[in-house]
Amino acid sequence: MYKQDLIEVHQRIEPYIHNTPVLSSKLINEIAGTSLVFKCENFQKMGAFKMRGATNAIIQLSEKKRKKGVVTHSSGNFAQALSLAAKSLGVKAYIVMPSSAPQVKKDAVKGYGGEIIICKPTLEAREATAKEIEQSKGATFLHPSNDMDVILGQGTAGKELLEDYPNLDYIFVPVGGGGLVAGTILAAKHFGNNCKVIGGEPFEVDDAYRSLISGKIESNKSTNTIADGLKTQLGDKNFPIIQEGIEKIVRVTEQEIKESMLLIWERLKIVCEASCAVALAALLKEKENYKNKKIGIIISGGNVDLSTLPFS
Amino acid sequence: MYKQDLIEVHQRIEPYIHNTPVLSSKLINEIAGTSLVFKCENFQKMGAFKMRGATNAIIQLSEKKRKKGVVTHSSGNFAQALSLAAKSLGVKAYIVMPSSAPQVKKDAVKGYGGEIIICKPTLEAREATAKEIEQSKGATFLHPSNDMDVILGQGTAGKELLEDYPNLDYIFVPVGGGGLVAGTILAAKHFGNNCKVIGGEPFEVDDAYRSLISGKIESNKSTNTIADGLKTQLGDKNFPIIQEGIEKIVRVTEQEIKESMLLIWERLKIVCEASCAVALAALLKEKENYKNKKIGIIISGGNVDLSTLPFS
Repeated sequence: MYKQDLIEVHQRIEPYIHNTPVLSSKLINEIAGTSLVFKCENFQKMGAFKMRGATNAIIQLSEKKRKKGVVTHSSGNFAQALSLAAKSLGVKAYIVMPSSAPQVKKDAVKGYGGEIIICKPTLEAREATAKEIEQSKGATFLHPSNDMDVILGQGTAGKELLEDYPNLDYIFVPVGGGGLVAGTILAAKHFGNNCKVIGGEPFEVDDAYRSLISGKIESNKSTNTIADGLKTQLGDKNFPIIQEGIEKIVRVTEQEIKESMLLIWERLKIVCEASCAVALAALLKEKENYKNKKIGIIISGGNVDLSTLPFS
Repeated sequence: MYKQDLIEVHQRIEPYIHNTPVLSSKLINEIAGTSLVFKCENFQKMGAFKMRGATNAIIQLSEKKRKKGVVTHSSGNFAQALSLAAKSLGVKAYIVMPSSAPQVKKDAVKGYGGEIIICKPTLEAREATAKEIEQSKGATFLHPSNDMDVILGQGTAGKELLEDYPNLDYIFVPVGGGGLVAGTILAAKHFGNNCKVIGGEPFEVDDAYRSLISGKIESNKSTNTIADGLKTQLGDKNFPIIQEGIEKIVRVTEQEIKESMLLIWERLKIVCEASCAVALAALLKEKENYKNKKIGIIISGGNVDLSTLPFS
């Protein structure tokens, strides 16, 4: 299921995204005792894989719906992705952001042409404000990760990676809202050669890990992690895909995230978010299990505040 | 002159280097009002273009000389490049470093297999110690930039760039010891289509700018710049090539370097040295002159101390 969908989604969004480069580092391979390739979605348009899902979700709308625009609530990469994807497709994007969102993120959304609607910094206010826009403007609400069109869009990163490296044994991805991991599971199933998907998750926000154990969607009481992109929880669309298809989730400490992030910056010479480093940290934590395997890692994004890096 | 040499040098070093990727950014193009491609030598082996020249210089030695090893004095990228190139070719590398060199640089040289000889932190001590190694070990001294084999090696970066983008109007490079700019001038002359080379240099170390005016090699009284790679001066081998072939040198302030560096990190999502940003800063400073031109910029290296970045 979904093989043909992934092929069609990919064809559909190709004019609007980059087929991002794949990098590797001899030294990281030596440290890991295995052979690693990094799919660099930090080089994706607007700097993150979210551009894929956002583009697909908008293209899938009817002409009539497109005319009325799209709305989401996010202060992260999906807000920027939806703004840019909408602009590329000539669609209006309304972005509900909490008043607490940093100016730099507001500027980024504005820069990509999104219209910002500020609300109180609570989930309730965000949802209510988005609902209001849906009603007053007729805009279609798009969820950052719990939407099948978004999930299939995110899956095209793994599909591209497997087209270049068809014999990967494993793909490691960070687990946040579940869109990327669910999409990657579908890509690995249909385009891999017995390729398994492993999730990395910070101990501090290990809702997906706990969800797999309890069999229902768990949430986080606190979200004290440097991996900001991973604070969200799974949804009813992506959870069943993850339950069925994921090999396992490996949890990592904040220190392990920082060390892996430094390794990526120092050795791959790329700017990436802490969230991406979670996937490498998960591999390194259990590297004994992957000796001489072929591993892919998805570097999910590169939108970082360079004035507050965790390296000093 | 040198066209056939560049072709042969490139063939010779190809197995030991990466043909590095070329990146671009729509937003940087908008800011510059022109079309820019960045040749990413920060992704080169050991993280800088110096790997090219070091590899060529060692390969060019006779079997007899190779057996006795090579020596240089450097605490920068050339020390690491010579160590790694020598190791790849089964040659011994002696690296003379001042006692003041940071531990991280010593570790990097050791990591690549170079043998470090510590001396007092003066140019005289460095030269005397290198001379001693030449005599006691029979090792061949290799200069980081004022050596025709090194210059031709560095020129292969521009050659690769022009093979991918044959119609560049200009290539901007940072000017330090003169090896990269001289090599790029030769590459542009023989592989470009009326492609001109422009140097970027910090006001704080504008020795090359002044050398072009005075007609003789000038030095810097002080070297107060964040672009550490550019503190060195030209030499008698590269200066005539630069004099004859460079379009001009544009000087930039420390603030302009920082701003360009931030732009590269934020928008290209790559880790690069301040020295690389000097080339972009030079272009942006005079962007009115390059409207709608096709421009290449060589990102020279990515070996940065991530704990002391100039962004905060």
